[in-house]
Amino acid sequence: MIKNILGTNDLIEFLRGKRATFLLAISNTKTADIEGITQAGIPGKIYLTPTLDSEFLTCGEVRSLESIAETPKGVPTPALLTRATHLLKPFSNIEVLNLGVQVLPKIDYFKTHDFSIAPSEDISTGANIDAMDVFKKGLDFGQEFECKDDYIILAESVPSGTTTAATTALALGYECKEMFSSSFKNVPNDIRNETIEKALSNIKESDDIFARLSKVSDNMLIFVAGFLLGLNNQTKVILAGGTQMACALLIVNSVLKQMEGHLETSNLALCTTKWVYEDEKSDIKALLELNDLKVSAYYADFDFSLSEHPALKLYDEGEAKEGVGAGGALTYALLNGISKEELTQKVESFLG
Amino acid sequence: MIKNILGTNDLIEFLRGKRATFLLAISNTKTADIEGITQAGIPGKIYLTPTLDSEFLTCGEVRSLESIAETPKGVPTPALLTRATHLLKPFSNIEVLNLGVQVLPKIDYFKTHDFSIAPSEDISTGANIDAMDVFKKGLDFGQEFECKDDYIILAESVPSGTTTAATTALALGYECKEMFSSSFKNVPNDIRNETIEKALSNIKESDDIFARLSKVSDNMLIFVAGFLLGLNNQTKVILAGGTQMACALLIVNSVLKQMEGHLETSNLALCTTKWVYEDEKSDIKALLELNDLKVSAYYADFDFSLSEHPALKLYDEGEAKEGVGAGGALTYALLNGISKEELTQKVESFLG
Repeated sequence: MIKNILGTNDLIEFLRGKRATFLLAISNTKTADIEGITQAGIPGKIYLTPTLDSEFLTCGEVRSLESIAETPKGVPTPALLTRATHLLKPFSNIEVLNLGVQVLPKIDYFKTHDFSIAPSEDISTGANIDAMDVFKKGLDFGQEFECKDDYIILAESVPSGTTTAATTALALGYECKEMFSSSFKNVPNDIRNETIEKALSNIKESDDIFARLSKVSDNMLIFVAGFLLGLNNQTKVILAGGTQMACALLIVNSVLKQMEGHLETSNLALCTTKWVYEDEKSDIKALLELNDLKVSAYYADFDFSLSEHPALKLYDEGEAKEGVGAGGALTYALLNGISKEELTQKVESFLG
Repeated sequence: MIKNILGTNDLIEFLRGKRATFLLAISNTKTADIEGITQAGIPGKIYLTPTLDSEFLTCGEVRSLESIAETPKGVPTPALLTRATHLLKPFSNIEVLNLGVQVLPKIDYFKTHDFSIAPSEDISTGANIDAMDVFKKGLDFGQEFECKDDYIILAESVPSGTTTAATTALALGYECKEMFSSSFKNVPNDIRNETIEKALSNIKESDDIFARLSKVSDNMLIFVAGFLLGLNNQTKVILAGGTQMACALLIVNSVLKQMEGHLETSNLALCTTKWVYEDEKSDIKALLELNDLKVSAYYADFDFSLSEHPALKLYDEGEAKEGVGAGGALTYALLNGISKEELTQKVESFLG
């Protein structure tokens, strides 16, 4: 089942049975090196997570490390859900967008787009992103991208991306402090808030949008905002993610407002997981409603209630939640007749 | 599951979810009339097997004979596996390449390419093939062929084709006597070896590659070698077969060496069955490793362990093994989310 968060179900129902290109945007921000800020990966090697996620999604194995990324509590990467979907109902095409990673995924054949973007710095001291350049690269890519399938599922893997997203939305003036999700069940609010506040303290009243993004955002958020403006509603897109993708939409909104521009959004939707939707520590719906742009939003009504596996039960307890397009992938699986049982079994098969 | 024989899994993973054109190359060699040399068909009517396989694969029924080809021991044609795949996850397109059959398949709509090639003679007295002509026809077809899908699955049905393949590779100087498979569990080595030796005795030291092929090969092997050179790595191709397809690759290798030419093979893979891979009487991996060309190779990890049907259990006991692209078809099925259970049930449904 796919459930509505905002808007009607027409767009998502129209995509039933349609062919999808899956784009995975990967990026590193040094913000992830702050101790305890994220559990999206192996401590000390958090930067590898987007690389490993790309390898596992496309080829079913992690090549840049011995074993699949698990968090300290043993929550496996949500890439398991995306890969399970791809095995049961393959995406027609998977491409990787390298938006600045320290280690390139070791994969052949799968197109990896390179944009000559460097990993960004720690936002507490300044992300040091050439935001206009990254935005422009997203815009160009959106204008030039020819989708050979019926729609795009756009996903991300950016460790500590919820922190940079929250900071970005706050820096752009949105009242959203309590609306952002985290990979933790018990969000480490001290570290997180401290980081956000340090980051925001670097912003001057006079900084324009791009100056603000340069200091507190990440490459994925900025690029995706540009990409959506470049696509200009010409291709159907599912933003496969939670609060981070909602933040990219807020950037689009801010840019449009400043430009006094307009973007048609009839072909745009956001799809996330039930874990994000039901998270009590964040509010994806409120975050989308802050936006002047009206975008349909859905969540995949999938959880691990059919599983006994302790690592998977952690998802249902509020750890992990989203990433590597898990929500969009689950939506795609459910749209194409794959059952909760099949998905559960396939994910379990990875864990042994 | 799809398992690697040689190379990485990147190419085959890239083909997950992609659309395939299935090409079935059919041919008769009078070598198959040697009593006891093959069990790929009905004694006395072995020549009909490629015709019946084509009819059954495309239309689900045999039209040029009352009942589906069974061997004396009751091993049904591997076309069952290919047809089961096509029912569960259809190929986008099936075309037949008539490389010299005695009886044309009675099928409409499905494109049957005619190359004005006659069935070849018994290799023990000389196959009498115009090898240069057949090779050139394959080359031209490869250069002209426009694949409307993402990749080609190239399969064959040539009774006694493993004998002509073994002889061909030996005639070209490869040290591979014990590496070739057979449709039998207990290979009738006397008849087979006698045939091979008679055939090789007709070869003169001075014979060049094409003179050798003219005497001991079959149309499919020669045509496929030409086809691969004609395609020139411009389209992704799965060679759906075992030792026969490995032999076609050895012909390509020999021709390239003589011409001092080069062929890029990054878009080329061989996919076979588990029965071929695990066969103790042959060695597909060693055969591929004899080749200077590096080609990724995989096998579909499928067997009939979920079936109780006595005719199907014969596969697991080493009879049959491959043909009509069974290995490539199973790979395609598994790549597209079809389960072992579904495949088993579908094959069983043909047998009643």
